[in-house]
Amino acid sequence: MNNQAIIYALDLLGTVAFAASGALAGVRRGMDLLGVIVLGIVTATGGGVIRDVLLNDTPPFCFKNELYLYLAVTASVVVFLTPRSFERMNRAMLLLDALGLGTFLVIGTSKALQFNLGLMGSIIMGVMTATCGGLVRDLLSNQIPLILQREIYASACVVGGALFYFLHFTELPNTVNLTVSAATVILIRCAAIIKGWQLPRGQAL
Amino acid sequence: MNNQAIIYALDLLGTVAFAASGALAGVRRGMDLLGVIVLGIVTATGGGVIRDVLLNDTPPFCFKNELYLYLAVTASVVVFLTPRSFERMNRAMLLLDALGLGTFLVIGTSKALQFNLGLMGSIIMGVMTATCGGLVRDLLSNQIPLILQREIYASACVVGGALFYFLHFTELPNTVNLTVSAATVILIRCAAIIKGWQLPRGQAL
Amino acid sequence: MNNQAIIYALDLLGTVAFAASGALAGVRRGMDLLGVIVLGIVTATGGGVIRDVLLNDTPPFCFKNELYLYLAVTASVVVFLTPRSFERMNRAMLLLDALGLGTFLVIGTSKALQFNLGLMGSIIMGVMTATCGGLVRDLLSNQIPLILQREIYASACVVGGALFYFLHFTELPNTVNLTVSAATVILIRCAAIIKGWQLPRGQAL
Repeated sequence: MNNQAIIYALDLLGTVAFAASGALAGVRRGMDLLGVIVLGIVTATGGGVIRDVLLNDTPPFCFKNELYLYLAVTASVVVFLTPRSFERMNRAMLLLDALGLGTFLVIGTSKALQFNLGLMGSIIMGVMTATCGGLVRDLLSNQIPLILQREIYASACVVGGALFYFLHFTELPNTVNLTVSAATVILIRCAAIIKGWQLPRGQAL
Repeated sequence: MNNQAIIYALDLLGTVAFAASGALAGVRRGMDLLGVIVLGIVTATGGGVIRDVLLNDTPPFCFKNELYLYLAVTASVVVFLTPRSFERMNRAMLLLDALGLGTFLVIGTSKALQFNLGLMGSIIMGVMTATCGGLVRDLLSNQIPLILQREIYASACVVGGALFYFLHFTELPNTVNLTVSAATVILIRCAAIIKGWQLPRGQAL
Repeated sequence: MNNQAIIYALDLLGTVAFAASGALAGVRRGMDLLGVIVLGIVTATGGGVIRDVLLNDTPPFCFKNELYLYLAVTASVVVFLTPRSFERMNRAMLLLDALGLGTFLVIGTSKALQFNLGLMGSIIMGVMTATCGGLVRDLLSNQIPLILQREIYASACVVGGALFYFLHFTELPNTVNLTVSAATVILIRCAAIIKGWQLPRGQAL
């Protein structure tokens, strides 16, 4: 299996994991079947859609290849039918979520570089691809987005995105850059979960 | 009056109905005149604007034909001045809202098909055209969007969008497809209001 | 210093002021460092990004000239480290915010006119450029957007935008139009703060 195929497989896996997390949030808020599916789709594809709109690569990725949408709908329906089993697999879900995070980050940053964005733009596109789905999920559930307040999550993406940006301008093969950057995000995220790492908060006002 | 003109008339009627519903939400939350107008405009045009951004047909429809904006502003000002009369016309408002829902759905799905989207994409564009205005209205009023939790609303659009998609590939004239699909949405929505139909919710967690 | 340079300088100043207001909101809600930076960036650039997406001028301005992003990040970090000093400078912050409001308004309206939008579209693009950053800041902090309910804020922009639109079709030099319109917004906003002006609210329901 070559590099492209691995990225694609991880991308689909991340889509399923993100859709499941969105659907679970919908079930928790007492939403009906369609609400749960909408939350699943939005969480799984929202980040990439916003990135594609900002880069003007339309229609966004999931409308060009509807497999993403079918996967998100299927995952959401499964979660709707058996939410408790997903709650019990909490650890596995966190790991899948971390895999998705790293994959989405490198896909987003890599696309930004194709569109000739600079350092800040490339990091932001990567971070948005990885986190904006979850952010919209939280907005639609009427909560302050977790990524703005919780443990190391978006910040793992910032590190990975900056790393990928600089590796991109070395002579290393793209495969190495993608793998190293995605692995960095996944490892930081997993370590943060295990160790309970947090970013500093501001002084109380 | 030909088919185009009927769709256009229903589109304008739906715009007024959606603007009124947005303005009323603003009055209920104690917003000032401008806040009420903003909520009216957003509710009436938000779905179509998001659709046009995703399909990259810019500037969005209401900036090409400002009649939509003038109607939304006028409806909002009228609601601001006489909100109680609109509360009293609750039944009529629900019917107008259902008319708007069916019309916006077929306009959105039909445009998605012009842009060669697939089944999922066409349904999603139709549903977003019909419901995203109301969704943004609820976000701006700091509420969990009604369409994610209430009775049959967005789901009527899903049925109508799928129907339109399949009819589009038959040999039936477009007029028939548009009419049948919009009527299906409107009838399901009205029946759901009268009968109190609901979609199943997830198991409590 | 010519006209272009003055606008650009005010634009950068407004960016810093808006970023500081976003970052301060993040500190108040107990967000971590990254959350505060995200809120600073979004508040400073969100309005212009939405305008550029609607006008299809992509990638949006701050991805073409990353200085905006670097300024927003720097201002956010400074606020994160010394939030109390910014709280104490409340008056100065309000004045800077008003300067930013007027500048962003004329930049947005002027760009809409370049894209041949009409009266409503030009006003809306100006108002969105000036206020959507703050609106997204409030959404992400899970609050009803201030601009929908508070004192004269967006309405000062509506007046300035309409003024700029009409001046644009006179024979006056663009420098005059920009200056007069921006000054109008800033003066209305400052007067509203000092006098406590409010727009009428709807009748209680």
